[in-house]
Amino acid sequence: MTSSPPALLTDKYELTMLAAALRGGTAHRRTTFEVFARRLPDGRRYGVTAGTARLADVLQQFRFDSGMLDELAAFCDQDTLNYLADYRFAGDMDGYPEGELYFPGSPVLSVHGTFAECVVLETLTLSILNHDSAVASAAARMVSAAEGRPLIEMGSRRTHEQAAVAAARAAYLAGFAGSSNLAAQRSHGVPALGTSAHAFTLLHTTTRQDRSDWEKAAFRAQVAALGTDTTLLVDTYDITAGVAHAIEVGGPQLGAVRIDSGDLGVLARQVRRQLDSLGATGTRIVVSGDLDEFGIAALRAEPVDSYGVGTSVVTGSGAPTAGMVYKLVEVDGIPVEKRSTHKQSHGGRKQAARLAKASGTAVEEVVFPVDEPPQTPAGLIGRPLTVPLVRNGEPVADFTLAVARERVARGLTELPWNGLSLSKGDPAIPTRIVPPARAGTVR
Amino acid sequence: MTSSPPALLTDKYELTMLAAALRGGTAHRRTTFEVFARRLPDGRRYGVTAGTARLADVLQQFRFDSGMLDELAAFCDQDTLNYLADYRFAGDMDGYPEGELYFPGSPVLSVHGTFAECVVLETLTLSILNHDSAVASAAARMVSAAEGRPLIEMGSRRTHEQAAVAAARAAYLAGFAGSSNLAAQRSHGVPALGTSAHAFTLLHTTTRQDRSDWEKAAFRAQVAALGTDTTLLVDTYDITAGVAHAIEVGGPQLGAVRIDSGDLGVLARQVRRQLDSLGATGTRIVVSGDLDEFGIAALRAEPVDSYGVGTSVVTGSGAPTAGMVYKLVEVDGIPVEKRSTHKQSHGGRKQAARLAKASGTAVEEVVFPVDEPPQTPAGLIGRPLTVPLVRNGEPVADFTLAVARERVARGLTELPWNGLSLSKGDPAIPTRIVPPARAGTVR
Repeated sequence: MTSSPPALLTDKYELTMLAAALRGGTAHRRTTFEVFARRLPDGRRYGVTAGTARLADVLQQFRFDSGMLDELAAFCDQDTLNYLADYRFAGDMDGYPEGELYFPGSPVLSVHGTFAECVVLETLTLSILNHDSAVASAAARMVSAAEGRPLIEMGSRRTHEQAAVAAARAAYLAGFAGSSNLAAQRSHGVPALGTSAHAFTLLHTTTRQDRSDWEKAAFRAQVAALGTDTTLLVDTYDITAGVAHAIEVGGPQLGAVRIDSGDLGVLARQVRRQLDSLGATGTRIVVSGDLDEFGIAALRAEPVDSYGVGTSVVTGSGAPTAGMVYKLVEVDGIPVEKRSTHKQSHGGRKQAARLAKASGTAVEEVVFPVDEPPQTPAGLIGRPLTVPLVRNGEPVADFTLAVARERVARGLTELPWNGLSLSKGDPAIPTRIVPPARAGTVR
Repeated sequence: MTSSPPALLTDKYELTMLAAALRGGTAHRRTTFEVFARRLPDGRRYGVTAGTARLADVLQQFRFDSGMLDELAAFCDQDTLNYLADYRFAGDMDGYPEGELYFPGSPVLSVHGTFAECVVLETLTLSILNHDSAVASAAARMVSAAEGRPLIEMGSRRTHEQAAVAAARAAYLAGFAGSSNLAAQRSHGVPALGTSAHAFTLLHTTTRQDRSDWEKAAFRAQVAALGTDTTLLVDTYDITAGVAHAIEVGGPQLGAVRIDSGDLGVLARQVRRQLDSLGATGTRIVVSGDLDEFGIAALRAEPVDSYGVGTSVVTGSGAPTAGMVYKLVEVDGIPVEKRSTHKQSHGGRKQAARLAKASGTAVEEVVFPVDEPPQTPAGLIGRPLTVPLVRNGEPVADFTLAVARERVARGLTELPWNGLSLSKGDPAIPTRIVPPARAGTVR
């Protein structure tokens, strides 16, 4: 079993809360839930919003069929089962479009509807946004570290099989050139890339010949099937011999060689010299093997043409979840907030804008009550961040990945100079949360 | 879209290798691929094998339908498409049963069949085993840190929505009492647990009353729907008032209170005293909020009855992937191995046994060529670790979770005393890899 129906991708307590609210007569109060991150993980300077499109899509499939209801009858009363049988999210969502950068407190998503229809979406909403934003946030750092060289996501084997598909999408959204994952191509149009592994070379082992013959047999088979524009993996045995065999078999027009182990910088230089000396001046060098944003940055000065990145990108490079929460902020027009230690939230339905200098450099994230937009200070330009995403349960935004990719790229160029630093530090810009001013506010 | 068909949960290069092997005439060589971890993550003392049952199950669904083949035609030739159209894994798998501990080099899984039928399973096999083993390995440390107190997995919202289901299963396999995830109950029989969140209390905010009334209204609604054996969340506003309200509403027979923020040890002691003073001596205390194995251990001396664990367990507590690899080790009876820098593998089809003293304490993991079992040293007891898992593509092992749970518990009791240490260090026992002795070996 690799997948379960969306409506069961839910914590049990969402349904026990629903049951209690139905019984108590509070289930149909109008509510707003807000998704935000209290902090960025691990000294990060920014986060990248991702997953919103997957959420809007899965909303359409969030239904409880009779088999599911039979099982839920173990702990849900008949009123709750009746409610779930007819469930369809008919509310609205506003928030940051995919690819928009976010900071601590940014209202990445606001979900509006009855308590009943909003509460059951909590777990799934957070699962999607936390996973996809974690991967996109790590991937964006790698993209900026690579300074224009293409990155290939190849970490499917290092994460849950279905998470791999979403991870490939999130990495692509953040600027990766493509992914090894075939399902991501099918589901999301992410270009699928990749050619061969060490196993293919080893497959050509026989009792009769020596390793050079085995490796050349493997290369010949690959070139015969995939053409000379393929990428040959040259480090199964000896790299220098591997490169010589690659060019002997593929000719100087060979597409690329891949190095997957060892000191990648040293090897890239050595392989570049060797390729050039063999006349293969156009043959590219692909490196892979435990690369993260720091490893990518460390190879900037080396003759590397593209990077394959696995574990680090799909696991968020040390921050496998974005840590976003889904908090009730408004009930029947009354701002509400938790007041216990350490976990305070800010009540009221909010929107956000990013303020920038005339030069375009961002200076501040401003989060304000939805009907109280603040004045933009003189000399600054305010860009609204909150857009309509879902109306009456239907997606209304432009969710295309190409647009989201452009948004990430633009967002990164707007950061102040230290916002792209890979070292740990404060968020690239501060977040200012404007409290509600109205008299009716209950605090 | 929350899920894709199993056969596309695959790296593109598995299929380009297949195409090249079909064309080169090597696709039908008999092969063995071995899954193992070169090292344990992050100073861990042991790993817990998990995911094997999910893999055996998904094998039955690993098929390419005509829609998928149409898409693959973009880069696969007709021979490859014909092969995939008829694909069904008809080989064998041997390996460690779920719940068995593993160490660096342990042959956790061996996959036997033609190159073609084995190579296409690489990505999916690793995705499942790496994810599930990472979660189970972290969870087992938490279980041993909790020293018998129940743990509830509630991290669904902190990981990909489908990964959450597998994570709940893996945590349960390792000894957790249950999970918040409803799909894990449906798919895997993991007990679903959980009652309410802060949003439920905040839902009872009105303009007319004060917070005490709001909180009591929420508690009354929950108790009315779920009975007095429920768990009331007492830290939305003031914890002391929350506990008083909880007992006022639920009576001294209230099931439990949950504390989700603040200094959990201090608060647990204070809440225990308060509950006892109110006569609620049987009311349990559940704590949650950013707990990991270290946080759990730190609460050993406190009056905590159970722990809710989220982010840390579903993300492997710092090690979100087990880092296992899938390596070709034998072709047509010839052991093969990669020989490049840093990533050497050990050729040949292998099995493993764990050696223990007469007292039952494990002393060594021995990995040996499949037809050359070594002598067990005098005074030690050898327990075979490798069992048949799949024959002709069909599951043959006992994959029940209850058995796997017992296996984890037994494995942990067999470790030497420092094997349960939470601090970073060497693997609890060393792995000895016995090389093949036969003359026919190509090295």
